[in-house]
Amino acid sequence: MLSDIEIAQKAKLHHIKEIAAQLNVAEDQLEQYGKHKAKLPLSLIDDEKAAKSNLILVTAITPTPAGEGKTTTSIGLADGLAAIGKKVAVVLREPSLGPVFGIKGGAAGGGYSQVVPMEDINLHFTGDFSAIEKANNLLAALIDNNIQSKTRSLGIDPRTVLWKRCMDMNDRSLRKIVSALGGKSGGIPMETGFNITAASEIMAILCLSNNLEDLKDRLGNIYVGDTFSGKAVYARDLKAQGAMAALLKDAIKPNLVQTLENVPAFIHGGPFANIAQGTNSVIATKMGMSLADYVVTEAGFGADLGAEKFFNIKCRNAGISPRAVVLVATIRALKYHGGKALSELKEPDAEAVKAGSENLRKHLETIASFKVPAVVCVNRFQADTDEEVEALKSVCQEYGVEVAVSDGFVKGGEGTKGLARAVIGALGRSGEGFRPTYDLKDPVREKIEKVCKTVYGAKYVILSNKAKSQLRRFEELGFGELPICIAKTQKSLSDDEKLLGRPVNFDIHIREFEIAAGAGFLIPIAGNILRMPGLPGIPSAEGMDIDANGNISGLS
Amino acid sequence: MLSDIEIAQKAKLHHIKEIAAQLNVAEDQLEQYGKHKAKLPLSLIDDEKAAKSNLILVTAITPTPAGEGKTTTSIGLADGLAAIGKKVAVVLREPSLGPVFGIKGGAAGGGYSQVVPMEDINLHFTGDFSAIEKANNLLAALIDNNIQSKTRSLGIDPRTVLWKRCMDMNDRSLRKIVSALGGKSGGIPMETGFNITAASEIMAILCLSNNLEDLKDRLGNIYVGDTFSGKAVYARDLKAQGAMAALLKDAIKPNLVQTLENVPAFIHGGPFANIAQGTNSVIATKMGMSLADYVVTEAGFGADLGAEKFFNIKCRNAGISPRAVVLVATIRALKYHGGKALSELKEPDAEAVKAGSENLRKHLETIASFKVPAVVCVNRFQADTDEEVEALKSVCQEYGVEVAVSDGFVKGGEGTKGLARAVIGALGRSGEGFRPTYDLKDPVREKIEKVCKTVYGAKYVILSNKAKSQLRRFEELGFGELPICIAKTQKSLSDDEKLLGRPVNFDIHIREFEIAAGAGFLIPIAGNILRMPGLPGIPSAEGMDIDANGNISGLS
Repeated sequence: MLSDIEIAQKAKLHHIKEIAAQLNVAEDQLEQYGKHKAKLPLSLIDDEKAAKSNLILVTAITPTPAGEGKTTTSIGLADGLAAIGKKVAVVLREPSLGPVFGIKGGAAGGGYSQVVPMEDINLHFTGDFSAIEKANNLLAALIDNNIQSKTRSLGIDPRTVLWKRCMDMNDRSLRKIVSALGGKSGGIPMETGFNITAASEIMAILCLSNNLEDLKDRLGNIYVGDTFSGKAVYARDLKAQGAMAALLKDAIKPNLVQTLENVPAFIHGGPFANIAQGTNSVIATKMGMSLADYVVTEAGFGADLGAEKFFNIKCRNAGISPRAVVLVATIRALKYHGGKALSELKEPDAEAVKAGSENLRKHLETIASFKVPAVVCVNRFQADTDEEVEALKSVCQEYGVEVAVSDGFVKGGEGTKGLARAVIGALGRSGEGFRPTYDLKDPVREKIEKVCKTVYGAKYVILSNKAKSQLRRFEELGFGELPICIAKTQKSLSDDEKLLGRPVNFDIHIREFEIAAGAGFLIPIAGNILRMPGLPGIPSAEGMDIDANGNISGLS
Repeated sequence: MLSDIEIAQKAKLHHIKEIAAQLNVAEDQLEQYGKHKAKLPLSLIDDEKAAKSNLILVTAITPTPAGEGKTTTSIGLADGLAAIGKKVAVVLREPSLGPVFGIKGGAAGGGYSQVVPMEDINLHFTGDFSAIEKANNLLAALIDNNIQSKTRSLGIDPRTVLWKRCMDMNDRSLRKIVSALGGKSGGIPMETGFNITAASEIMAILCLSNNLEDLKDRLGNIYVGDTFSGKAVYARDLKAQGAMAALLKDAIKPNLVQTLENVPAFIHGGPFANIAQGTNSVIATKMGMSLADYVVTEAGFGADLGAEKFFNIKCRNAGISPRAVVLVATIRALKYHGGKALSELKEPDAEAVKAGSENLRKHLETIASFKVPAVVCVNRFQADTDEEVEALKSVCQEYGVEVAVSDGFVKGGEGTKGLARAVIGALGRSGEGFRPTYDLKDPVREKIEKVCKTVYGAKYVILSNKAKSQLRRFEELGFGELPICIAKTQKSLSDDEKLLGRPVNFDIHIREFEIAAGAGFLIPIAGNILRMPGLPGIPSAEGMDIDANGNISGLS
């Protein structure tokens, strides 16, 4: 089989105005970025139409390092729905350059289930991440400048400044730095650092805003730190929100591209799910729902991370609800959770599948807690045996959940028609919206406990002394009724990445908090999770190239 | 009179395909970015056609903090040439966000001589700066990762790493940092810092490359530092150039926009002239010359910085030469150089103009040293008196140089027809290419002395001990035959910003060197010049805003 990039480069792309026409969007409403990308105006959002659309969330079991193929499945499912005659759009996140140059590679799907032009989507795209970075780093410069300058000093205590810079790069050296060295002209030295852009509050704000005014309000509400006399300082006190919003004037508009089978794909916003809310922008989801009858979307990593935040943060904030959830699993991952080593996953072992299904059970129970019907999708690999698939099916039968096998990677939409039909079936069993895990009025500690116990299966939640004192401060400042966005490893249901399967009798340790007052959530940081990744020993950047004609290779 | 942004927002823009059509570029060759911006393919460069085009360089006397209006004059001159029936394009640099949010504001011209859409051009534009930043910072991450990782360690000595990160922001706190703190997982702590993107080597490389292959070669040639055993390490040793070039795949293509009078404008690349080579990309200049009979371009700050580097670095590298030079002066600035305070510049004072013309004389002599005919352009302000203009004219008469008054700011092309005719006259006196200030085979120290003496009017050049030892190393490594790109204040011909007019009997102090082995030049750093600016007490970011409909205000 060809590589992802080879398949993508052989694709017959339609002009983006033809893709838009499928959604009844006229050419003059497009801001074209070349022939195959466009930004769309926010005026296309229509809440009444959106309320009638069928939103389908694709999530996954706890993934292996290679991922379960949620994006691939989402794209495949959209192609499958189109193949059985439905008016559909897929709505996804934008890839981050960190993983592209690191270990995971791009995030535009795989095989015959991809969004294209994949090189553009994976590399810089329409510049949204960069605009987010600039808005984030402008605020940092304005804060430090206010501390340095006498002209209109707010009296900010540099020791209290929580705002970090960000960069869309896996760069461990920037995690923790001392800035502003070099004497008086260099400013006041501070302990600070960079988060990866996908984990920045500006990314979260962009993804949760309903329009430009809402965006600007949220930017103004960013909590920066305190004055020497203990007064909270917000971005609006620095008059930062106007310039920051101006920087985001294009980034707020969703991007339209297409799948390999010319199905419309919205790609907008890109927060990670382990260290941020993990789902594309509200604006793109609502636009998709305004223009298509079926909208497939995904939320990052396992259902403990992406799906939980999708429901409790995004859907609650946007007033939307999915009508079905697809839980993606691979036979490989089930064996991994069942105790097989990464190097042995190609060996058939139905017993390991059964043992590993404990992890799947937990995620099915989590989805059930949201009261939305589920379908399990087996993202098929060549090595999977019928016996292994049957083992999985018998587990799902216990839950009354249908299992569909997806061959989207090898066959595109032709390989996902069965999945599409199973999803249509599930949509028929949909109720009236979802049930959240916690109430916003619950005390913060209770919200954390509800997520940790209901979704992760934890026994206790332990807050460090630092976390406790931060929490007191945040509650004083009136942030107690915000939803929570727990930063936790994606490798385990627990905060210890070594605990595979369905761990029991474990505690969750909240090391510290961050606050995203503008985005509107509190971030309890669990275990050792870092908000700026590093590169691996052999970064994939090494294998990438571009020839004299501009053809890119080595990008997957 | 309306503000710049009000004028720009009232402009009647033509669709970018109509602007391209003026240059005989077909619609399907455009990569549209919305309706009013496009990227053009490098295949439009035609060296034979370019050789017949008339390249006109716009430079200036030593500017006041407000600038002399070179960009405004360049745009006005292009409009004026179009108004007298010439097929013309203007080729400019892209604005940096640093000045936009700092003190100077945007860089898209002013009054009725602007390029549009000015908001887009000033904010993010087509993403070129961000792509440059990413390529720069990917290399930084790969270097630090190689030091951290055992997998394929090159044995880089972290104390020798010269590569800095960059950010397009005025942020003094990033000038000097200690990175990679936090223990083993954070890497090896290093003293490092950020340059502003306009001063980064990647910007220089992008602007000097002739095509994608040349770009990749130059990226591979970036000198990173040394191994513990003293061996030089280049970006190619880290296999970085392929991924870096892939990140720059769109940034290498020139951007087409238009002036307020719908004249084609290429805007591509944006190095500063005080801390970098100060002129737009070779690719854009050559493309403009391939498509238009007259090409107006500018080089940053005074002729001591922008013009010197334009000739000795860019033109020599690209094998091109301007056929005329326009030296922009304002009556205000001449009075400033003649001893008036910034607050008194509106008071008529022909004597101060005469005294301040010493600065203009030096720049005229510099231009004469390149053997290219000059025209002096008075960029008119309302307060200018006829007597003051006459004082300036009498100085220029001594040099046999014509003086034209430009009213482009107030009247657009209608106000620059006289300037356009004067330039056409000068083109008729053009010789066979320019004479450089130094030979590439001159020893480095001699190159520096030739520029400092011929162009700045300095007496001696003094190298610090650090600079001397760096120079020895760079010569050992074979960089001795590169041109030089001196980093020096723009506020004086000397390296002391307080010395206005035409200083004499001064020395130039070279504090240290940087090397841009990929771009292909050595950077002697003179005096206290910094390669990362700071924000002023009241940053212009504070006054910027965007309304619910996306209309931006407070950007000038």
